[in-house]
Amino acid sequence: MSIAEAGEFGLIARVVARLETGPTTLLGPGDDSAIVAAPDGRIVASTDVLVEGRHFRRDWSSPADIGHRAAAANLADIAAMGAVPTALLVALCAPVDMEAAWAEDLAGGLSAEASLVGASVVGGDMSSSPTLTVAVTALGDLAGQAPVLRSGAQPGDIVALAGRVGHAAAGYTVLSRGFRTPKALVEAYRRPQVPYAAGPAAARAGATAMIDVSDGLLQDLGHIAKASVVGVDVHTERFEIPGQMRDAATALGVDPLQWLLAGGDDHALAATFPAGVPLPEGWRQIGVVHDGTGVTVDKKPWTGPLGWDHFR
Amino acid sequence: MSIAEAGEFGLIARVVARLETGPTTLLGPGDDSAIVAAPDGRIVASTDVLVEGRHFRRDWSSPADIGHRAAAANLADIAAMGAVPTALLVALCAPVDMEAAWAEDLAGGLSAEASLVGASVVGGDMSSSPTLTVAVTALGDLAGQAPVLRSGAQPGDIVALAGRVGHAAAGYTVLSRGFRTPKALVEAYRRPQVPYAAGPAAARAGATAMIDVSDGLLQDLGHIAKASVVGVDVHTERFEIPGQMRDAATALGVDPLQWLLAGGDDHALAATFPAGVPLPEGWRQIGVVHDGTGVTVDKKPWTGPLGWDHFR
Repeated sequence: MSIAEAGEFGLIARVVARLETGPTTLLGPGDDSAIVAAPDGRIVASTDVLVEGRHFRRDWSSPADIGHRAAAANLADIAAMGAVPTALLVALCAPVDMEAAWAEDLAGGLSAEASLVGASVVGGDMSSSPTLTVAVTALGDLAGQAPVLRSGAQPGDIVALAGRVGHAAAGYTVLSRGFRTPKALVEAYRRPQVPYAAGPAAARAGATAMIDVSDGLLQDLGHIAKASVVGVDVHTERFEIPGQMRDAATALGVDPLQWLLAGGDDHALAATFPAGVPLPEGWRQIGVVHDGTGVTVDKKPWTGPLGWDHFR
Repeated sequence: MSIAEAGEFGLIARVVARLETGPTTLLGPGDDSAIVAAPDGRIVASTDVLVEGRHFRRDWSSPADIGHRAAAANLADIAAMGAVPTALLVALCAPVDMEAAWAEDLAGGLSAEASLVGASVVGGDMSSSPTLTVAVTALGDLAGQAPVLRSGAQPGDIVALAGRVGHAAAGYTVLSRGFRTPKALVEAYRRPQVPYAAGPAAARAGATAMIDVSDGLLQDLGHIAKASVVGVDVHTERFEIPGQMRDAATALGVDPLQWLLAGGDDHALAATFPAGVPLPEGWRQIGVVHDGTGVTVDKKPWTGPLGWDHFR
């Protein structure tokens, strides 16, 4: 059954049936708006949109994969403020001949990823469109913590990373060359493993700045450097290149450092901490903040691409 | 300058320059997430997406018009819960050859409409896409009031309306027949005049159910009837058909009741109130709730189209 045959309200009913409700949902889908608990008295909110052909391909990822990734991209932005995600709202634009089951499986993936952090899909909208598009808004709660902005890094701080970098970019390269293995890299591209808990943990530990690494580590650290008016130096000896990634890089003729330093889509978190602060679980040092500008790699300028511009 | 020439970050800077910041914005655009005041401890949230060719046409509406309408569609959903809008988040998908000025003017329209209710555009995302798409999420605060759901209407309640119906539908018909006048109708389509304050006023006055009339009055009253397990009868003698609308209907060979009862896009609010409750300012009675099912017009079934299905 196509979504045109299901009709707008029929499709909404099918999709809503695939959603789980979490403890922060005071009113879920079905009314003009949803209502979500905001016990902190402040709400953290972020929007990320995924467009077919630009952010995903239906022949590379299942609808559930795309749901997981669309949710992860947004939930990571909430974690990067030091907050706990509470809710997602989803606008789905889809061609009228799309199978209704595709939208249902997308909803299942969105809901499952949100459930990992106790959040739920609380509302959304659907429209027909020639271009398959998934726009997600995530909400979150700061639980009394001060938010960790991009602008608080200080010279002398250390730069730390939680989660993986380069895996999704390697998987993307593998897929774009027509391969389906190594499976671990391809799966990393399809479903990022986001260190959600590391965000609030960093806030509690006194992180001075934090960002979701979505566009590439160097580009995103550049945002911290610019906002904080500091320089950042990344130490490549801190990165381990997994055997499978090294093998794939050799086979595909790619410098694996390019994946690690400029690849996006793993949704790692990067943060700065005052020197001497014990790093919370899951965080490891990868560089230092200094009294300068921009981002260097082993004290030298990086000559490769920095990351991703969604209009170029 | 096209958006591709401006680049993602250049375009974001241009767009953000067009936004006003309101009192509820604790952290505006520029970090991983925005932070919005949620003094009630609950947040009201809704998402509506507009797709070119489906919800708007660039030759019929200016980018500022489209911004106003995209904001209005979302802000009205917040008001329909009895809440006061506080923030918008906007995902813009646009062809790479689009003029950057178009996106800036869209942002200006979004921001100006939000300013009408003291809300602001606090964040967003942009991507290239073959299909121009504007997905908006609105947030709002209940200020201690219980939300007004669709499910609370009781037999014996009266049905009331705040704001205009049929004007936008008439304007749409005028434009779709290739005309540009009457200007008042065309302008109503381009920029709805939403009775935002009527939503919280209805909540304070004891409204038992409420909905944003976005798909057509009869279809949206049908949602209240279904959710409340009641019947609704609409009294056509309660509607005045403005002279311009009557003239346009005659000229175009349309039954003006069709515009009033089944036209969307004015974003009026419809609500039910216990009989005898004085209606707040801006509300007028248009029917009654009875112990039955479905929606009738002057006690008879309506044989015309009910409203809008975004997939048909």
